[in-house]
Amino acid sequence: MNEQEMINAAFEDLLQSLRKGTTEESIKLIRTAFEFAREAHQGVKRKSGEPYILHPIAVAKIAAKEIGLGTKSVIAALLHDVVEDTDYTVEDIANLFGAKIASLVDGLTKISEVMGSDTTKQAESFRKMILTLADDVRVILIKIADRLHNMRTLDAMPEHKQVKIASETLYIYAPLAHRMGLHAIKTELEDLSLKYENPLEYQELEKKIHAYRDENTGLYQQFIAPIRERLTESGYQYDITARTKSVYSVWSKMQRRHISIEEIYDLLAVRIVFDPKDNQPEKWQCWNIYSLITDMYSPKPERIRDWVSVPKANGYEALHLTVMGPGGKWIEVQIRSRRMDEIAEKGLAAHWKYKGDNAEASNEVDKWLAGIKEMLEQPGTDALEFLDEFKLNLFAKEIRVFTPKGDMRTLPKGATVLDFAYDIHTEIGNSCIGGKVNHKLVPMSHVLQSGDQVEVLTSDKQKPQSDWLDFIVTAKARNNILMIFRREKKEQVKIGTMMFENLLEDMKLPFGTENLNKALLHLKLDNKDDLYVSLAKGNLSVEDVRKALKKKSENKFVKYWKLQFFKSDKEKAPAEKEEGKIINDVTEDASDFIIAPCCHPIPGDDVVGMKIEGDKITVHKRKCPEAIRLMSSYGDKIVPVKWVSHKIMSFLAVIKLNGIDSIGIVSDITMIISKESNVNMRTVHFETKDGIFEGMIHLYVHNTADLNNLMMKISSLKGVENVSRVENLDV
Amino acid sequence: MNEQEMINAAFEDLLQSLRKGTTEESIKLIRTAFEFAREAHQGVKRKSGEPYILHPIAVAKIAAKEIGLGTKSVIAALLHDVVEDTDYTVEDIANLFGAKIASLVDGLTKISEVMGSDTTKQAESFRKMILTLADDVRVILIKIADRLHNMRTLDAMPEHKQVKIASETLYIYAPLAHRMGLHAIKTELEDLSLKYENPLEYQELEKKIHAYRDENTGLYQQFIAPIRERLTESGYQYDITARTKSVYSVWSKMQRRHISIEEIYDLLAVRIVFDPKDNQPEKWQCWNIYSLITDMYSPKPERIRDWVSVPKANGYEALHLTVMGPGGKWIEVQIRSRRMDEIAEKGLAAHWKYKGDNAEASNEVDKWLAGIKEMLEQPGTDALEFLDEFKLNLFAKEIRVFTPKGDMRTLPKGATVLDFAYDIHTEIGNSCIGGKVNHKLVPMSHVLQSGDQVEVLTSDKQKPQSDWLDFIVTAKARNNILMIFRREKKEQVKIGTMMFENLLEDMKLPFGTENLNKALLHLKLDNKDDLYVSLAKGNLSVEDVRKALKKKSENKFVKYWKLQFFKSDKEKAPAEKEEGKIINDVTEDASDFIIAPCCHPIPGDDVVGMKIEGDKITVHKRKCPEAIRLMSSYGDKIVPVKWVSHKIMSFLAVIKLNGIDSIGIVSDITMIISKESNVNMRTVHFETKDGIFEGMIHLYVHNTADLNNLMMKISSLKGVENVSRVENLDV
Repeated sequence: MNEQEMINAAFEDLLQSLRKGTTEESIKLIRTAFEFAREAHQGVKRKSGEPYILHPIAVAKIAAKEIGLGTKSVIAALLHDVVEDTDYTVEDIANLFGAKIASLVDGLTKISEVMGSDTTKQAESFRKMILTLADDVRVILIKIADRLHNMRTLDAMPEHKQVKIASETLYIYAPLAHRMGLHAIKTELEDLSLKYENPLEYQELEKKIHAYRDENTGLYQQFIAPIRERLTESGYQYDITARTKSVYSVWSKMQRRHISIEEIYDLLAVRIVFDPKDNQPEKWQCWNIYSLITDMYSPKPERIRDWVSVPKANGYEALHLTVMGPGGKWIEVQIRSRRMDEIAEKGLAAHWKYKGDNAEASNEVDKWLAGIKEMLEQPGTDALEFLDEFKLNLFAKEIRVFTPKGDMRTLPKGATVLDFAYDIHTEIGNSCIGGKVNHKLVPMSHVLQSGDQVEVLTSDKQKPQSDWLDFIVTAKARNNILMIFRREKKEQVKIGTMMFENLLEDMKLPFGTENLNKALLHLKLDNKDDLYVSLAKGNLSVEDVRKALKKKSENKFVKYWKLQFFKSDKEKAPAEKEEGKIINDVTEDASDFIIAPCCHPIPGDDVVGMKIEGDKITVHKRKCPEAIRLMSSYGDKIVPVKWVSHKIMSFLAVIKLNGIDSIGIVSDITMIISKESNVNMRTVHFETKDGIFEGMIHLYVHNTADLNNLMMKISSLKGVENVSRVENLDV
Repeated sequence: MNEQEMINAAFEDLLQSLRKGTTEESIKLIRTAFEFAREAHQGVKRKSGEPYILHPIAVAKIAAKEIGLGTKSVIAALLHDVVEDTDYTVEDIANLFGAKIASLVDGLTKISEVMGSDTTKQAESFRKMILTLADDVRVILIKIADRLHNMRTLDAMPEHKQVKIASETLYIYAPLAHRMGLHAIKTELEDLSLKYENPLEYQELEKKIHAYRDENTGLYQQFIAPIRERLTESGYQYDITARTKSVYSVWSKMQRRHISIEEIYDLLAVRIVFDPKDNQPEKWQCWNIYSLITDMYSPKPERIRDWVSVPKANGYEALHLTVMGPGGKWIEVQIRSRRMDEIAEKGLAAHWKYKGDNAEASNEVDKWLAGIKEMLEQPGTDALEFLDEFKLNLFAKEIRVFTPKGDMRTLPKGATVLDFAYDIHTEIGNSCIGGKVNHKLVPMSHVLQSGDQVEVLTSDKQKPQSDWLDFIVTAKARNNILMIFRREKKEQVKIGTMMFENLLEDMKLPFGTENLNKALLHLKLDNKDDLYVSLAKGNLSVEDVRKALKKKSENKFVKYWKLQFFKSDKEKAPAEKEEGKIINDVTEDASDFIIAPCCHPIPGDDVVGMKIEGDKITVHKRKCPEAIRLMSSYGDKIVPVKWVSHKIMSFLAVIKLNGIDSIGIVSDITMIISKESNVNMRTVHFETKDGIFEGMIHLYVHNTADLNNLMMKISSLKGVENVSRVENLDV
């Protein structure tokens, strides 16, 4: 097949994917857009070598088939790179395809512009994107389709770009897809991200999940046989399928709970999708199916999730229950009607379809977008801060709480009384002094549970306190509090600056950075704002500063502990290099490396370097949440690094273990550790409760091979149940 | 109406109450039994002055109408006092009415004999009763009917008998009725008990509950109107009723959680009882009704209780949900079919009816009775201990847990891995070293949750430890552990006795209590067994004992702190008496009183005296759980006591308070306390968290009036939210 044939075939395939009932006229318009885009991208190739036009066609197909969008969106998807990459303008699009499509393309172009440039912080761009585009949610949906296709074709990219795009996807696009109710796309984005970020772990897990599935085919058949029988007897048309958890969701559960895949016991779920019978409400039929399943299998108490009566905030509807299956295995059963299933997979767009109005978005999503806009429009929001909070609000599980009047509000899991107060109104939050949860007095830091009824207590005299930031979880609350602090700080900086300048005048010293830096150095402060605020608040007296300015200069205070890394040395072949160094593939003049204190990578770990301030490269584990956060926001600061093994230097690693206590077990364990010539213990902490011990050991090891070897040896001791490495030290 | 007419009318009324379908032949037999009993009790009166025969007729009516028992039980109820109170024998009954009825009457007579005598401990009797009667559960049911009638006619009894019978009812019969699934009777027994034990509190609460109900009639009507509409639309025949919590359940929730009635927000529930339509399973219809209610009202998340799929251990079936009603009030809705409703109210007997076999008890109750018998047949079980545990197992809420193979087991709430191990098998319990809950290693003290899957880890080397008693909750586990300890102790006492006797021989001292007591006194031991065990275990050396035996005698160690009470003085009129004394209505030679350290009553509290050991009378609050426990077991040791007020002595009381922290609030509170001339503070403890304080103050007051006055004053301080007396100090 030559290129033109390939392109035509792709386009024909797109036409097959359009929504049912797409008119001839619409198809004609789509064809026009295709010809236009083909012409515009003529001769341009993707990194993979394919003609560029195949990308917009693929994006349009995802928009139509996987998201369920309509003609305008398909056309906008086909044209999404035209304005950015060719000489055509938005006006040209408007003339040819009308204002609506032009505005969609304009939105998509703006995102590309801000997200594409390596030197801009993505966080800031992302903020702009949301701000511009919250007007029409379809822009976000098309952008998600664009990202999905890029992720599916990520192989063609160089590795450091892969890592950047993958972390950005994990950090922004997957949560966004989740928020839009695009379950299938969210899962695929997550799995693809993991695949490029941690290829080895991904492959291993994927293999294990397949194996688990294969092993349990018999069990599954045994489980569903009687369900099939009863469903058929009851006259239902249905599909019943086995679902395993996605690779990413297994991986993240393992990370979160420090457990092995063997300990995840809800790998298998069963989904029943039924075509509702005409004579009864759909909801009744969900419960009828529930009834016939629980006639046969014992349900897990208090595990019914009725998202039919009250759908999730992203529109998800289904009835979930967990029952005891054959062989003593819990099995989750998801019951959905055909309509609910489509909403679950396609999200928002499916909502529109069932609501019969293409323009009306789901109410909850509207509310959410309005909230995001409100947050963004506040002056002075820091972009990275915003991104963190945006993500927090996207990702968290939901709880439902009630006002004293009985109105329901959805909050993220972990939300406190104070978050609730801010959710009601900024002023209620600012003046909150506590609350009553289910009529009982509680502090404002009290964490709410689903179903709580909450009354906020306020006082005129209250004002936001800095320790509030320690326990609030919603972006709205955090932004409001920070805004007030920023306002206060601005005022204090003003006052402090005046005080400092007066002092300099008084001492007949010149204004300028030299004296400022001298003061900061001697007072051990990080930046001038700290100095000004301390002065304004009275934490520092003018006399303290005067003394500091009179001191003689000395060497700069070295702030971070750092390992003495060797400089990168590209000339030598890896085999000759001293082991244990971190080498850096791209920078020419690499200087010091810092082992990230959050995740403490050791030689053998998949690592990534971040060069955010100055010349230092901080080395993180690739899977470190902090690194993922930084990569998604400072994609241009990623520096690919690699370990070369080394037998002299040692690195800190922490292991956790537990098991059945017996006399001498601790000494057996420490004996094994001391015998290993490559390992030094720093601290050992053991605790025993009713015959079960838990231990935490800080070790210095040379690399992961040494560590794994040691962990294997400890595991094989009788009584030891579980040995695992602590991946993030603050956990 | 003369006596004979009254009796005849009562009997005719009984005949009206018989189960539908009672044959003419059965009625004839019942009439014969009635004539026989009437003849036997001829001329005897109840305490109320009524003819005695009215009592057996009333018991028979309860058995028939409220429990739903059949002809044999009705006859046994009519005859239940004949053998005990007249010259007829069980053989006479057997000749006249057959062996089955005779054996029921025999069982009832035996209970009366053991329970009736004031000098025997009821606990021991109760044990015998269960042991004798677990063969035919109908004996227990008739006994419950007997007790219900006695409680309904308790007015005729003298007050100290009332208190005894009421506490026994609360402690034994109400839990028993609950276990048998007799919900309505259990509630009535509890309410009547409370009414006689705490008449004032009962009346006050009853009034408040009525008022609450009246106030909320509008709300209730508003709530059910649309439900009625939808139910009728959907073609249901149903009853819908408003239910308020019973007085006792409100009272006990207030006691348990230290809250006021205003803080109990689930006072109101709605019950829907429907006649199932023919064309659908009953269970489907429950969920259809659930669906139409949740279409209108938002359900409280994770509060669905599906006792239709898996009924409670006592046979209860229903679907409960809680929804947000008008005015922001949570309302519980109970959905039951007519059949489920009958089971809920009449328990076991209704089960039989629906199962169609009069003899077959519910499986779960059978299992339970078998377990009780097994426990009772163990040698050496202490009666009071048994009773405590029996009650524990009766009362606790249930959880459902699963074996590794997926079998469900019901355990009381709070049960640990070790309880689970003992539930599986005694040997598994004895050798338990830990467990895996949901595949995660946990200590054996780990408290299980409903839905947990539990694997027990065992070791040959394990044996029961005394600290196990601190965390197990099931009677089966406790009894097994105690039995092993008793066996061990017996062995140790034997060895210790030998060692002690050898020592005496060696010292040329005579055997006998004098030297034994001397050793105990100097070694500060309570009893000889402690001495022997300490010797056998090596906690005491023979030399220690030798030294003790050589010491000179001195005064006895006074063990309990006690207040110096005045002696009771019956001659003086109450008005003249010094205030604060406790006087005792019946004992002639009252000596010391002890203020019970568990509940610390103060003048003004309803109190009861217990004279269990020696001459001392321990004074408890009437509502003290320990007192209720003692009264039910040592009914003959109850001594009615009354306060006479007193202005010199002070009594310890503890108050708890919380509220919104503000500067000076603690000093405001303590100021109020110090200003009260009748109150002294002992300790003050305040804790603040995020602007909410909690305080606990130990005070010395003269009486409840002083205390209430003080609490009122503190309550009225701005910022103080809640002030309550701590009723039991160990809470």
